[in-house]
Formats: sequence, structure tokens, C-alpha cells
Amino acid sequence: MSLTSEVQSRWDSLTKPPGSLGKLEALVKRYALIRGEARPQLARKAMYIFCADHGVVQAGVSAFPQEVTRQMVRNFLNGGAAINVLCRRFGIDPVIVDAGVRGPTPDGVIDRKIAAGTQDFSERPAMTREQAQQSLEAGRELAAEAAGRFDIAGAGEMGIGNTTAASALLSAFTGLDPVDSVGSGTGVGSAGLTRKAEAVRRALTLHHPDPADGIGVLAAIGGFEIGAIAGFVLGAAERRLPVVLDGFISSSAALIVKAIEPAAIDSVIFSHRSAEQAHSRMLAYLNADAYYSLDMRLGEGTGSALTINLLESALALYDGMATFEEAGVSGRE
Amino acid sequence: MSLTSEVQSRWDSLTKPPGSLGKLEALVKRYALIRGEARPQLARKAMYIFCADHGVVQAGVSAFPQEVTRQMVRNFLNGGAAINVLCRRFGIDPVIVDAGVRGPTPDGVIDRKIAAGTQDFSERPAMTREQAQQSLEAGRELAAEAAGRFDIAGAGEMGIGNTTAASALLSAFTGLDPVDSVGSGTGVGSAGLTRKAEAVRRALTLHHPDPADGIGVLAAIGGFEIGAIAGFVLGAAERRLPVVLDGFISSSAALIVKAIEPAAIDSVIFSHRSAEQAHSRMLAYLNADAYYSLDMRLGEGTGSALTINLLESALALYDGMATFEEAGVSGRE
Repeated sequence: MSLTSEVQSRWDSLTKPPGSLGKLEALVKRYALIRGEARPQLARKAMYIFCADHGVVQAGVSAFPQEVTRQMVRNFLNGGAAINVLCRRFGIDPVIVDAGVRGPTPDGVIDRKIAAGTQDFSERPAMTREQAQQSLEAGRELAAEAAGRFDIAGAGEMGIGNTTAASALLSAFTGLDPVDSVGSGTGVGSAGLTRKAEAVRRALTLHHPDPADGIGVLAAIGGFEIGAIAGFVLGAAERRLPVVLDGFISSSAALIVKAIEPAAIDSVIFSHRSAEQAHSRMLAYLNADAYYSLDMRLGEGTGSALTINLLESALALYDGMATFEEAGVSGRE
Repeated sequence: MSLTSEVQSRWDSLTKPPGSLGKLEALVKRYALIRGEARPQLARKAMYIFCADHGVVQAGVSAFPQEVTRQMVRNFLNGGAAINVLCRRFGIDPVIVDAGVRGPTPDGVIDRKIAAGTQDFSERPAMTREQAQQSLEAGRELAAEAAGRFDIAGAGEMGIGNTTAASALLSAFTGLDPVDSVGSGTGVGSAGLTRKAEAVRRALTLHHPDPADGIGVLAAIGGFEIGAIAGFVLGAAERRLPVVLDGFISSSAALIVKAIEPAAIDSVIFSHRSAEQAHSRMLAYLNADAYYSLDMRLGEGTGSALTINLLESALALYDGMATFEEAGVSGRE
């Protein structure tokens, strides 16, 4: 019996109409397939929060000033951000990674700083090819370590300006017009939205990124945290560590993964459909389905954390419900 | 400052882009408005599972035999059902109510049995007008008691055949053709689906239920557990006890509430959009939005329980996140 059938057979033995737990059944199935076990455990949970700055903020693409990236890293350390609240509530260990934040890396943050922010990709490449490879390698190494310590890892991010990078990646890989790949991000107005679309358009015209060259695209228009997340997924896939990607920006790292090693996407659990308008298009290109939509667009890993919590509930049902036989309940007629 | 503004102002003071927690912000706002407090607590949680049998199963509308209602009541008592697993996980007290199950009421189940199941409403009224009033009264009394013991109550149900009653109620109140109001329920095939639509059509032709007479509609084509849930909502609304309705069948009780006392709907938190196809139509008629969809169609209160858990996460964020001022994070430019 295949692993999929084994999982489905367990679900169908439980006292409920077949399939009636919908996406909870699908979520357990995906987790089991990645782990390679029909009755996987889930005890040790991490949330990796990859942080970096973006030169493209100079193009006026964000509602918040650049220093907010650094300030939010401090907020993560002090436990005051949304992701901290959810991690405490769900028993998830937060791991803060500096992949390229401007300024010194505070104690308590893992220092994988590639550089003090990317360059403005609307005027020149975001980073060198070597830096792109370094960011991927940083993620791979963290995944190798994470696989020994955790059963699952969420991947979230913080970086003022990074929805613009994610939109640029979406346009580069899918050919989607920048007007359709950009969205309001942290809440930029219509003028800012126009500036975002123009910055993406300038970047695509300038760099002509080749969708077959994932590292090249990352170097041209990506971000250090996005590269690190892509590397994290690549490293996790080799070790059967499920990675729960968050929203629009985290998912954009999967675009790079798909270009480098498409099979690694199988180790990803996509979580929610973000309110960022182009996220649906991105998920469709990745042939991925989100489990739910709560119109969230906060990042940090907040959607991943809620999905890990949902998975734990789904596993509790899968493990804890009585079977028809155990409960003496009649089956379908 | 109005209570709504007070809640929004708290959300907007927290270190996140305004509105970026989407429906989590809306969920807290709704809970706060029902409780009448800007910083409501949520500690004591109940799940009322209203159970009853349905005469319409004689028309071949269900994939499961009628005795499953009674067997599942036993499963609830033994802690083996999906709702038990979720209640244990989320610290919710399950309360099992027999509103009209065939056979004796087991110890540990609250006995509010109106009769041993309804009549087959495709041939005669489901119950007398007196029985309809009794079922509403049973719910009201339980709500009065619940309001003293709990901060929130979910309302779920169990009753083989009750999706047919819920579909009949939807058609009676909205004029929707039975072909569009019925769905697969616990998993009935296409022949069963046709029998469901025909049973609903026969009932509507036979009883001509008057949408302005909520009690009359309940008597003609409802169910004892549905009447009890409607009464529960009516009683809860008088006492600022938020009631989290589950899916298609629980929501159908709100149709009766709307006909009797429309303002009571304001005390309801609708939870998920069920996989039962007509649920969206029902929610639209109730002017209600679901918070998420996981393609679930299990009932028992499983969607309510997940929504209570989501609300607790949302409240944890609302209470526990740092403000911009506390965290020293810059606001929007």
C-alpha cells in the first residue's frame, strides 16, 4: 500500500463521513508524505525569520521607512512582534536570522549577513552572483542544522521593500505585467503602487533576467532573505524537513527553488493565501494550493505559525479520533 | 469614542501595518462588540452539541443509517469523536444535549428530548407548533445557564438526515430551488441527492411554510436540534454571550432566529464556510461572512471549535503585541 493510501485509509477508518475534514486531511497527508511516515509525530517546531534590507526602497516603494527592518529585528528579540506572540502560544521556537540588515547584528540574532542591504535593483543588480550563492548557502546550512533539531520549520521574513522584490520575481518568472504583480504591501497608496510597478518594469528592462537561471534572477532582482529562504527550502528538502512558507514574499523564494531544483517544492507546505493581490497568481504558477485565507498580509511567518497550529490540530484528530470499529458506529449504507 | 473605534485604535497601535491581520482583526472586533468591552477576556469556553433524529431519513436522503445519531452520542460521551479531540486540545468544555434522539438518553447527556425524532416532513409536519416552541425554549434555558458559566459558546449538532432539514429551511426562507439548496451532506450519491431535492420539494408544496412565521417554518420542516440552537442564540443574545455557529446545519438555525428576532444575529460569530454547496447562499442571506474555508463538512461543532481557537490566537495578538511606542518602531511615513 502506498503511503498516500495508508494515510487515507487511516482517515477513512475514523468516525466521520469520508473526506469531511477537507483540507485538514490534505494537510496531514502532505506532512506525512514529506516525513515519509504514515503516522508522523510533530513535537519540535521552529520559525526561522529571515531579515534583510532592500536598496529598492530608494524608489519610494514602501509605506514605512527603511530603519523599520532593524527596529523590527529588535522587536523580535524583545518578543513584542506578532510572530513572537504566535510562537509563544503554539510552542514554536523563533530563530531570527540577519541575512542582510543594515547596521550591526544584535546578540541573539544569527549572523548570516551577506551585505548591508541589497542595491536598488531598479538601477543596478540587487547583488552579485557570488552574493546570491552565499545567501542560498546560508539558508542551506541553517536547514541542515534545523533538520537535526526540529520536526518542522516555518519560514517567515522581515524586510522593508521586499514585496517589491517578490513582485519583480513573480514578473520575471511568469511574464506577468508589473501592474498585476505589485500590490499594496505594508499599505502603500496609489502613487506608491505606481512607483512599485515602474521600479519593477525598469528592473526587468535593465536586467532581462533569464527564468531558467534561478541564481541569476535572484542576483538581479531578489533579496538576501529571499535567497536564504530558497536555500533553506533546498537544504530542508534533502533532509525531509517540512518547510511551511508564509505569504507572498516567502512564497517568492519558492520561485527560485523551482528554477534551481523543482522537486524540492514537494517539501514545502504552503500556508495561507495572503491579501497581497498577486499571491494567487504566484501560488498557481507554483502549482500550490493555500489552506485558507484570512486576508492577512503581515509576513514575519504569521501565516506559517497559524498553519503549523492547524496541522497540529489536524494531527490530533488523525491520531486521537476513534475508529468506526472502536466506537461501535455503523458505516455508510 | 465608539467601541469599534476603540478596538481599531488598539489594533492600529500595534507593531504591524494597519489592517494587516485581516480577518483576525475583524474577529476580535466582533467578539468585543458582542461582549460590550474593548478589551474582553476569553477564558471559559463551551461547545454545545445538540443532537436529534429526523423522520425524513425514511425518504432515503442520508448515506448513513439513522442509528448513527445515537451511536455518535455515545461516541461523544466516550470522547472519541472529532469534536472531543478539538475540545480537549483547545480547553473547551463539551456539553452534549439530547433534543430528540431516538432511544433513551444516556447518563452524562443533558436530557431536553422533545420527542424520539421528528416526523418525515416530506409527508407531514416535522413537529407540532408546541414542540417547535419547546425546542426553542430548551435552547433559551440552556443559554441562560451558559451565560453564567462561559465567556463563549460554540453550537454544533449531530443528527442523521439534518442536512435535508437545513436545505429545506434555506429554500423556505429564500425561495431557492431545492436542486440548489441540497448538497452531498455526509456523502450521499447522485441518486440520494435527487431524493433529497425531491423530499424538500414535496415538503415545500405540502406545507407552504410562511417565511414570516419562524416558529411555523421550524414546525413544518425543521428539527429539534435546529430549534434548540435557534433558541440558544436567542437566549445568548439577551445576555451578551457570543455563540459561534458551526457549518450548514447550525447556520440554518440562524434563519429561524432571523425570522423571530433579527437583532439576535448580531450575537452570532459565524465560523467557516462549509463544503456543503449551499452554505455560501445561506451565509449571504444572513448577511454573514465566514472567516475561512477548509472544505470541512463534518458538523458536531468542529468548525466552531477551530474558530474559537482562532479567536484566542487573535486575542493573544491583540493583547500581547508591542505598540509602536513600546517597541520604538517608526510608523508610516
